[in-house]
Amino acid sequence: MKKISVLTNKKKYPIYIGDSLIKKIDKILIKERLFSNNCLIIYDSKVVGNNLKIIKNKIPYKKKFYLKFVASEENKNLEFVNKIIEILLKNNFSRNDCIIAVGGGILGDIACFTASIYKRGIKFINIPTTLLAQVDASIGGKSGVNHKLYGKNLIGTFYQPDIVISDTSFLNTLKNREIICGYAEILKHSLISSLKNFKYLKKNFTKILSLKTPEIVDTITWSCLIKKKIVEKDELENNLRKILNLGHTFGHAYEASVGFKKKLNHGEGVLLGLKSAAKFSLNEKLLSNKDYNLINDHINELGFKLNLKDFFKKNNINKILSFMRNDKKNFSAKISLVLLNKIGKPVINKMYSTEKLKKFLDRELINL
Amino acid sequence: MKKISVLTNKKKYPIYIGDSLIKKIDKILIKERLFSNNCLIIYDSKVVGNNLKIIKNKIPYKKKFYLKFVASEENKNLEFVNKIIEILLKNNFSRNDCIIAVGGGILGDIACFTASIYKRGIKFINIPTTLLAQVDASIGGKSGVNHKLYGKNLIGTFYQPDIVISDTSFLNTLKNREIICGYAEILKHSLISSLKNFKYLKKNFTKILSLKTPEIVDTITWSCLIKKKIVEKDELENNLRKILNLGHTFGHAYEASVGFKKKLNHGEGVLLGLKSAAKFSLNEKLLSNKDYNLINDHINELGFKLNLKDFFKKNNINKILSFMRNDKKNFSAKISLVLLNKIGKPVINKMYSTEKLKKFLDRELINL
Repeated sequence: MKKISVLTNKKKYPIYIGDSLIKKIDKILIKERLFSNNCLIIYDSKVVGNNLKIIKNKIPYKKKFYLKFVASEENKNLEFVNKIIEILLKNNFSRNDCIIAVGGGILGDIACFTASIYKRGIKFINIPTTLLAQVDASIGGKSGVNHKLYGKNLIGTFYQPDIVISDTSFLNTLKNREIICGYAEILKHSLISSLKNFKYLKKNFTKILSLKTPEIVDTITWSCLIKKKIVEKDELENNLRKILNLGHTFGHAYEASVGFKKKLNHGEGVLLGLKSAAKFSLNEKLLSNKDYNLINDHINELGFKLNLKDFFKKNNINKILSFMRNDKKNFSAKISLVLLNKIGKPVINKMYSTEKLKKFLDRELINL
Repeated sequence: MKKISVLTNKKKYPIYIGDSLIKKIDKILIKERLFSNNCLIIYDSKVVGNNLKIIKNKIPYKKKFYLKFVASEENKNLEFVNKIIEILLKNNFSRNDCIIAVGGGILGDIACFTASIYKRGIKFINIPTTLLAQVDASIGGKSGVNHKLYGKNLIGTFYQPDIVISDTSFLNTLKNREIICGYAEILKHSLISSLKNFKYLKKNFTKILSLKTPEIVDTITWSCLIKKKIVEKDELENNLRKILNLGHTFGHAYEASVGFKKKLNHGEGVLLGLKSAAKFSLNEKLLSNKDYNLINDHINELGFKLNLKDFFKKNNINKILSFMRNDKKNFSAKISLVLLNKIGKPVINKMYSTEKLKKFLDRELINL
């Protein structure tokens, strides 16, 4: 079992990482002095059977309420936030009570957002069950819901959880496509931190993707540590934290353009986005050919056949660009990108015209 | 012109207080280095004519959008939040752009809430136009909207503005009932701070209520200073800040029980609540007869004939109690009250059973 402490301006909270942690959740919560009367456990409908049962039995709070969430980007909306709030109000939840999220990043985002706006903030316990949520979404306090017309996470807050419990035993139920989702963010964390981390991934990726111990716990831990350090320095994303968006301006726009459908999930969008960011960095003569090839080859060797032209045609380009312009980190008529100078050296606030990006996408959709 | 600096964990921001400040708003914003491209000016439909025109002319930002808000507790809801968000998204507002609120506390609350959840927080400029908003609502970063079924401010965040500009020239358009609204909070600030402040009010209240200079600017300034000091020490209302709820657990329940109608506005609810809190403190032998009479007589000498039994009958008591239990600062089956040991010495977290409060209200509705 590993423990990381995250210290932000607003809160200090621990992240626990390890196998079968939920069996000891009562002890962990008591040790961390997290006491509540009421709790609402919001769980992903796919987190079935035994694990949910264990949590039900082990949570040491008096009154437990349950709410199933069918996790999808479409369902991550204000209507479901309202539904949660009505349950909390009906059962007279106070600020000292808590929401417990048991599920992936989508559930974590909407549960965290609701916790942040209910009576100006109640306690929030996050039990991420996907690799993506464990290495990325659960750290840093970003909450959010989607807007049907305009895109992802456009409504949200910065709100820190009271504790994150990352139990790797949940990961065994994940499909390959969900594991790759988490891997995309692990890869991003390596690209923004050091060549050493990237090389570790190149060497160990098959073990990580097949959830071997100790590689999986180690990788989650260093991945969390990279994100934690960045978030601690820049909680509100004024500057440094932007490096975490490497691949995401492209990636979000790709996801949004297919309409957040199962055809392209978040991690796949990010992997496509990392490819695009690397290629764009190469074109701009920021990134060397050698580093570009290392990145591109590694994404290809993962074996998921992610190529832009399998998802988009040229007549989708304007749609993609409009989503890139609407990205919430975009502050002007130009589009702001995070690019790479080399592996381990990201560069933020690179501004490009829509025209330039149009040409880039145009070429990508022929040549790939 | 007076300037107060508020320093919280999240932000440092200035409050400007003075006459005709909006005529210099361009200079103030530039001096404070508050630059934006886009701004959405949300204004109370009653802030008419010349003042709004001056603001329109003086705001030094490139693109200005306008949205009228018909201020009422009924309209302070998530639907209007959605309306604001759609305008911001449609016009591609980034996090560096801003919302400018020109109106009373209701408008400030909903504008602040929207600013806090749009793309995880955009800039917020608050120009409070009522005495209530200038002495209370605009300081401390509490945002919120109401829930139709369950009550006031149940959905909200803590979010600090980037600047507050309190121009006392707005106050001349207020009706007496609106001025008394602000006076209720000024009175509360005196009761939780010192006998000296209370005596200042007893001596000067006619000048303050008729908006005489320098009394009105001085009073707003010391009232802001009292609140600022409390908020700086306890931004998230973990403890000390609760003293600001003196009279409010009763007051909110009174307002909610009449259904947030014009019959009883917020300040009148608070004055009734302060009377109840003082009386309850007397009954509990916390407050002396002398101090109780000072408070009660002062509220009566304001000349607004605020008596509980003019608003409620005995068959309203259960409704009032259910709203008191639902108050978001209430953490248990018992009801938590802020009471007074003496003028200037509040006491928080006093817990009472519903039964006890029922008896109290029962007697009040006979004897008053």
